[in-house]
Amino acid sequence: MRVHRFMPNMFHNTIGAHPPVFEIGDGDSVVTETLDAHGYDARGQQPGRSPNPMTGPFFVSGAKPGDGLRIRINKINLISSSGWTFQGLASHVVDPTAKMLLPQREKIAWLIDNTGGRARPKLPPAGTESWSVGLAPMIGCFGVAPAGGQAISTATSGPYGGNMDYRGFGAGAEVLLPVSAEGALFFLGDVHAAQGAGEIAGTGIETAAEIEFSVHIDKAHAPGWPRGQTPESIFTVGNARPLDQALQHATTEMITWLMTDYGLSAIAASQIMGQTVTYEIANVFNPAYSVVCLIDKKSIPGHTS
Amino acid sequence: MRVHRFMPNMFHNTIGAHPPVFEIGDGDSVVTETLDAHGYDARGQQPGRSPNPMTGPFFVSGAKPGDGLRIRINKINLISSSGWTFQGLASHVVDPTAKMLLPQREKIAWLIDNTGGRARPKLPPAGTESWSVGLAPMIGCFGVAPAGGQAISTATSGPYGGNMDYRGFGAGAEVLLPVSAEGALFFLGDVHAAQGAGEIAGTGIETAAEIEFSVHIDKAHAPGWPRGQTPESIFTVGNARPLDQALQHATTEMITWLMTDYGLSAIAASQIMGQTVTYEIANVFNPAYSVVCLIDKKSIPGHTS
Amino acid sequence: MRVHRFMPNMFHNTIGAHPPVFEIGDGDSVVTETLDAHGYDARGQQPGRSPNPMTGPFFVSGAKPGDGLRIRINKINLISSSGWTFQGLASHVVDPTAKMLLPQREKIAWLIDNTGGRARPKLPPAGTESWSVGLAPMIGCFGVAPAGGQAISTATSGPYGGNMDYRGFGAGAEVLLPVSAEGALFFLGDVHAAQGAGEIAGTGIETAAEIEFSVHIDKAHAPGWPRGQTPESIFTVGNARPLDQALQHATTEMITWLMTDYGLSAIAASQIMGQTVTYEIANVFNPAYSVVCLIDKKSIPGHTS
Amino acid sequence: MRVHRFMPNMFHNTIGAHPPVFEIGDGDSVVTETLDAHGYDARGQQPGRSPNPMTGPFFVSGAKPGDGLRIRINKINLISSSGWTFQGLASHVVDPTAKMLLPQREKIAWLIDNTGGRARPKLPPAGTESWSVGLAPMIGCFGVAPAGGQAISTATSGPYGGNMDYRGFGAGAEVLLPVSAEGALFFLGDVHAAQGAGEIAGTGIETAAEIEFSVHIDKAHAPGWPRGQTPESIFTVGNARPLDQALQHATTEMITWLMTDYGLSAIAASQIMGQTVTYEIANVFNPAYSVVCLIDKKSIPGHTS
Repeated sequence: MRVHRFMPNMFHNTIGAHPPVFEIGDGDSVVTETLDAHGYDARGQQPGRSPNPMTGPFFVSGAKPGDGLRIRINKINLISSSGWTFQGLASHVVDPTAKMLLPQREKIAWLIDNTGGRARPKLPPAGTESWSVGLAPMIGCFGVAPAGGQAISTATSGPYGGNMDYRGFGAGAEVLLPVSAEGALFFLGDVHAAQGAGEIAGTGIETAAEIEFSVHIDKAHAPGWPRGQTPESIFTVGNARPLDQALQHATTEMITWLMTDYGLSAIAASQIMGQTVTYEIANVFNPAYSVVCLIDKKSIPGHTS
Repeated sequence: MRVHRFMPNMFHNTIGAHPPVFEIGDGDSVVTETLDAHGYDARGQQPGRSPNPMTGPFFVSGAKPGDGLRIRINKINLISSSGWTFQGLASHVVDPTAKMLLPQREKIAWLIDNTGGRARPKLPPAGTESWSVGLAPMIGCFGVAPAGGQAISTATSGPYGGNMDYRGFGAGAEVLLPVSAEGALFFLGDVHAAQGAGEIAGTGIETAAEIEFSVHIDKAHAPGWPRGQTPESIFTVGNARPLDQALQHATTEMITWLMTDYGLSAIAASQIMGQTVTYEIANVFNPAYSVVCLIDKKSIPGHTS
Repeated sequence: MRVHRFMPNMFHNTIGAHPPVFEIGDGDSVVTETLDAHGYDARGQQPGRSPNPMTGPFFVSGAKPGDGLRIRINKINLISSSGWTFQGLASHVVDPTAKMLLPQREKIAWLIDNTGGRARPKLPPAGTESWSVGLAPMIGCFGVAPAGGQAISTATSGPYGGNMDYRGFGAGAEVLLPVSAEGALFFLGDVHAAQGAGEIAGTGIETAAEIEFSVHIDKAHAPGWPRGQTPESIFTVGNARPLDQALQHATTEMITWLMTDYGLSAIAASQIMGQTVTYEIANVFNPAYSVVCLIDKKSIPGHTS
Repeated sequence: MRVHRFMPNMFHNTIGAHPPVFEIGDGDSVVTETLDAHGYDARGQQPGRSPNPMTGPFFVSGAKPGDGLRIRINKINLISSSGWTFQGLASHVVDPTAKMLLPQREKIAWLIDNTGGRARPKLPPAGTESWSVGLAPMIGCFGVAPAGGQAISTATSGPYGGNMDYRGFGAGAEVLLPVSAEGALFFLGDVHAAQGAGEIAGTGIETAAEIEFSVHIDKAHAPGWPRGQTPESIFTVGNARPLDQALQHATTEMITWLMTDYGLSAIAASQIMGQTVTYEIANVFNPAYSVVCLIDKKSIPGHTS
């Protein structure tokens, strides 16, 4: 249960079985840095490149294919006073006939005020000069080497995690991923200072960050899709296109989880889910969309957090 | 600005230009009763029939095609001590290969405890004997006569409203619908004592209710899709299949609203939406799914509630 | 088995239980005229209006809810020397980021040469002066009153038929529809002189026509979705959004048909469909898309045409 | 322009930048063998494994990122007298509520009669004893190393080709793929003796084969999505979920092709496509579906084959 510091000097644009950059043990924590989605660090250098350059992979000693890897996001420190977004919404989140509503997809700068806890466009459009958004840092992209020896672009996601762009992946969230390679091979990057649901502009407020995470090997649970929890809720994540299919994956993983780990019958699990579940649309921008299915811990019979 | 009492004795299973059952004025309120989705009232009689029999239509004097009709849900009183749900999840909300997880879609009874503010299955599955869900009454289906002289089944929804099954349609919500017929012709019914997001069991806790609503004619705003507000948020609703398209409608209506009524440029509206919007999946069960796009009033420059 | 002539003088923009304009018997044929999609006749008058004004409804004596109505398209005569299309593709049939490829959706005139059997734009774009397309007349929209007392816009379609815009609905095709109202109440209109698959421009070559059709009541077969045949094939039609769901409906109807009418087991029907089925995308433009599932009669054991 | 023989002894389950097994020149032909989708050869040995083990990659000297690689399928010889399919349709190609129509997804043997040109189940279900299907061999999976250093499972497909399962990929078809790696790195395998459209059983008649193909480097054309031609038609392939998106890709690639290579304006290309295009649903089973957009060469002004 050690705390490591790791300063990356190379970055990957695919998540796959790349040579590990650092080895850690079960229960260890790591403090490391991540570049922004275009490869820039907090000093304005560009040691990585688009899309979503990853820090890692971290080799977790003892993690074997068939295990689960539990990631806890302990802290996300925004270490840059600037970030960026695209200024317009993505063309596919509005009606196909409503394209005239969309400004050019130009990259614009944002100022990040860590002290005040707010961010705002550097050059605010007329009428929004005093507008700002509260900081809510999250990790856009993280995951473990996928199944079948694949190396998959950090633009997309799957059962192994990846570019899920879920604003719930902030400090305090814990995520369980299925291990497919020796040592799990954990990658992370693409922090957003804040982001609306769906990532409908195609970006959050993209920025460099320092992250502390810890890892735990779970020999008993290799989920079909990412599972997670916050202090209030348990949740599952489905990554696929279209939204309907992402929702099916998340819902299937949740009912499976309730039945296998909480000992509920199919009927009991269905009744509880049917009347209490909530969903979040994490991203509706990436090649695979992400839908999150959540249940309050209080709504689960016998839940002990 | 009168308050009317109207006790229905006939019910419609389509929303269309049916003869009005009651005439009201701009600003008036109505207290009325609704049957459950299968046509039962609080006394166990069945004066209506499936699907979702509607109380109405109410003729709003002065409402003309091209106007908007603003509906305020003032109160929803649960007037029955029982309700029902289907016991299993809908087959299309889980993976196509995961059907074995689903119990038979059997109708089961629920007890509604208005004093305690909770509901629970009459015959709870083993392990859930002490489980219950908090009451959160909502109107599943309401709307005005649709465009083009159509009469559309209360199983589905569209720009005119209909069977949106959104759990946000509780007391305190206000909704703006586009008027297509003389007098608007407002229908309502299908109250749920509670419901999870997505209505993934195909039902909320279906029950009879007493509702108080009020109407206001808006000569200046005929929305493309339903718009609404709660004390905290403004929201838009897109009704279509698949979810992707429902989300496009809701997102398009929101950016249009921000630009036309809040005076924001396309860039300003995009920036605010991109980093602050949230979505709710209202229903992923009906022929048309419903997705809600919400923005906190606090996030809108110059919003005065 | 009489042949009637019926000259319409009123037209409907919804398919529903409207008062019949003409009564016919089981086995009868009708020769009638249809307007183009915007309501123009062959003389340039506009007695109807957009969208897709329907001739009818025809009351078929003896047709009862629960029956099937078999429509045979005997002849489609193009009675106008002109037609029209939109000049550009619909915005949703190309990538959302490829809108720049699409010209303005302007209405343009086409010349129909019945003698030569070809059609061409009246003002052909540069480089296409000698281009033309072969005439292949089809009925874009036809159907019977839908279930549940609905009246549904002729812009869309469902189990009852409607605006399916399938280029296979030419002379020689036979279609079976489920009867939901006394007398079936058959409507038709919206002839295209030719049309590509998918109706991706949002129109075929829209024109007025004279049609001869005949009707047969089928007391034994009320299909879930339209079924049909040509001399070579049997086919089923699924009408829904998105394409995936339209395909599911068509495929389900086909396996059901093979099992119930051809006496095949689920395994036999699956094996035959899996290795011989073809699909056509009828339209990917209307509110409900249409997908057709076809099997060669030769591929069906024991088929006797 | 040499003809090589290459007998593979190792196989890949991802398409990526693996070390080449054989080097060939621009214009060369190769005769090689492929395993069936589960890794069996014509002798009943299993040197590969599921899914879709690939022969290759072939290094094409002179092919550079940014080029196109033109593959011609010259011959597909079925070298085994047996094949296999799954016996039931895939669960997601029928209505979610119609699962009862589907038999267990069991693997069954087929007999391939090369002399008679037909195939049939080894143990035909009752009533289909004399049924058989005509042989129409096709290559289910082929492609070049994808962009961005990815290695992608042979279960799926993308702009680089992959598991498209299109029954049009038989002898005589030519396909153009975009080159992303030095030498292009061409893979192929997964031959089907026959297959229905959509691959709705999840398989064609899977079998081992001998294939002759030739390669041509095209320095002028790197398509966005696979382009191809047969003697009659030109076509484009879109690979994505859902079908709507696959269709968008194929349609966008076709209009782009008509405008850039045939010198048509957007209006001319739209008019021709709108009234003459056809679509095939190649597969609706794999993680990415495949839709093919075709135009008869005769329908293209100035086409010289």
